[in-house]
Amino acid sequence: MENFTAYNPTKLHFGKGVTDILGETVNEYGKRVLLMYGKGSVQKNGIYDKVISQLKSIDAEIFEYSGIKPNPLVEDVSEAAQIGKLNNIDVIIAVGGGSVIDSAKITALAISNNTDPWAIMKYEAKPKSTIPLIAVLTLAATGTEMNGAAVLQNLETDEKIGYVSLLNYPKHSFLDPEFTFTVPKDYTAYGVVDLIAHALEAYFGEGEASLSDRFIEVIIKEAMEYGPMLLKDLKNYEYRANIMWAATTALNGMTNYGRKSGDWGVHDIGHNISYLYDTPHGATLSIAYPAWLRLQKDRIPERITKLGNQLFGTNSVDETISNLEEFFKSIDCPIKLSDINIGKDKKEEIVTQMLKNKINGMVHQFTDDDRKVIVDLMM
Amino acid sequence: MENFTAYNPTKLHFGKGVTDILGETVNEYGKRVLLMYGKGSVQKNGIYDKVISQLKSIDAEIFEYSGIKPNPLVEDVSEAAQIGKLNNIDVIIAVGGGSVIDSAKITALAISNNTDPWAIMKYEAKPKSTIPLIAVLTLAATGTEMNGAAVLQNLETDEKIGYVSLLNYPKHSFLDPEFTFTVPKDYTAYGVVDLIAHALEAYFGEGEASLSDRFIEVIIKEAMEYGPMLLKDLKNYEYRANIMWAATTALNGMTNYGRKSGDWGVHDIGHNISYLYDTPHGATLSIAYPAWLRLQKDRIPERITKLGNQLFGTNSVDETISNLEEFFKSIDCPIKLSDINIGKDKKEEIVTQMLKNKINGMVHQFTDDDRKVIVDLMM
Repeated sequence: MENFTAYNPTKLHFGKGVTDILGETVNEYGKRVLLMYGKGSVQKNGIYDKVISQLKSIDAEIFEYSGIKPNPLVEDVSEAAQIGKLNNIDVIIAVGGGSVIDSAKITALAISNNTDPWAIMKYEAKPKSTIPLIAVLTLAATGTEMNGAAVLQNLETDEKIGYVSLLNYPKHSFLDPEFTFTVPKDYTAYGVVDLIAHALEAYFGEGEASLSDRFIEVIIKEAMEYGPMLLKDLKNYEYRANIMWAATTALNGMTNYGRKSGDWGVHDIGHNISYLYDTPHGATLSIAYPAWLRLQKDRIPERITKLGNQLFGTNSVDETISNLEEFFKSIDCPIKLSDINIGKDKKEEIVTQMLKNKINGMVHQFTDDDRKVIVDLMM
Repeated sequence: MENFTAYNPTKLHFGKGVTDILGETVNEYGKRVLLMYGKGSVQKNGIYDKVISQLKSIDAEIFEYSGIKPNPLVEDVSEAAQIGKLNNIDVIIAVGGGSVIDSAKITALAISNNTDPWAIMKYEAKPKSTIPLIAVLTLAATGTEMNGAAVLQNLETDEKIGYVSLLNYPKHSFLDPEFTFTVPKDYTAYGVVDLIAHALEAYFGEGEASLSDRFIEVIIKEAMEYGPMLLKDLKNYEYRANIMWAATTALNGMTNYGRKSGDWGVHDIGHNISYLYDTPHGATLSIAYPAWLRLQKDRIPERITKLGNQLFGTNSVDETISNLEEFFKSIDCPIKLSDINIGKDKKEEIVTQMLKNKINGMVHQFTDDDRKVIVDLMM
């Protein structure tokens, strides 16, 4: 086991009606609030009204930044930070999924340090402080509600990258499973894929961590049990709750304690595809993971088999991979690029983009040939 | 799933050499240090010297309170608090196992609130603040290094009871598995039992929490895999590390998220036996748990079978209980009171003590008859 620090400063409120204390929680940090959200689904499903009513109950002064895209842009963060700075805000409330919360994390850093957000993302700026962030989660997937990671893309530099900092943890996160009732079937499934992929990135990381491995295996089992049930019954509270909590635990640190690092090579591939074709994050992962495993199968057969044994009761590497692929298929997620109408003619474009962004894998590094092989395997 | 708050403010440093930053960590809180430890084993195994050298490196002024007993006494806490108050200390460092850290938690509250420690334990005083506590763990067992619980006994009132508060979490805990290398075989085994018992208390609590159940099952599997290996190889770093981390996770909150509460009825029984006969905590649990399960087997057969299925691949309630008992036996832990030389003549004394201390079970309540049955089952 590698040395590690177990520390997670986020206070996470989980369950029915938890946002009833949102107002008083915000009030601990101040009344000048920057409210960030996406393209308006929170207005349709009533969550926006609930948040506003909580903020009104404490006479908060509300400044809004909305329209954040599912693959979030640094341009939006720059604009949100301008509004925050101009209005001298005390606290940011992010209402949405990973894209909104990630954008809010970097907005908070940009305001507090008066820094260009992309310089933060590129680890060129060194933020020393942040603005308190409170997250209201409306999509179970990324785990950002209880970790220090944020992912943004930049259309000018042609990149989609992540930034990790202890400053990024939300002070509070509110997770009401009912707030995810209106997430459509496809995005619900992508969330299930995303959480499984997060668990796998840790599993295929560096260093032996026996108990963390076991946690990963059962988080994936939970997702594989309740994911399909949820997709047949989208307003089932227990299923939504189980998937929501699984998504948080898949990336709140506990899968990685005792390990040197996770791998994250598959996420890098996924980010590139999302960047090129605006593909939903989860949909890139259900395509990229089986391909990545096939690339690695002769290199790390024991590791893949350990997983297969736990999840599917098989000792065959090939069966492990095909079972995982079958699972993704069973929840209507794409397993090949052709499933999302990306044809073989795009092969060169994807390989070039990966090369340009130095997608080299992390723990398990890619050669130039590997990049071509993995894109072929996704075709 | 029940509503819950996931929040754990302890910063836990795990691994070889982690106390190399103990001095600088203490320095964040001040230089007037109350150093608490037990009966001197930390002086024999060199841990005391390491801690002192770290404290000297920051020119700390050190006040000591030592001699805390394995079943810790509130009298010791009162005396430690006097020393702390007299010397206006900034921070407490607890070097030891659960008894020392628990004593330090209540000492910190007693100093900060100028309150009688037993009034805190009885929930009569309402502490509002505390003194920062830094724990250096030398025994893997209780999980106190990353939670808000403390257990003390009072010889005057004839009680051994627990007190839980968010104020009780250590600011930092240092877990170097090498610091547990000199824990003798019997106490190492008791630690394994203790961590399994903690996981079980959550498992037999109130409310359905699917993922938390899975976490419990794998924490117990980890203990059952590495516990016996460790007992044959007491200075094996990996085994020590795996058991140490399993013990922390068994009681740092994650097994209980989504549940209304754990049960803790077995711990109450164990505390009473410890109180009467100064029996090591873990040894009381390997006796009490099988007995408790036999009492409950017709009341909660599905729950017991779910556990048995996961741990032992059996669907029989009786086999689940006997397999657990066999495991405790295999690591040389007592499974009957007679194994620790408590004869049938003590039956009345134990039942009376349980009655006196209102040991009624928690989620699964005891009748007057149940108390007699369970004591019989332990005989």
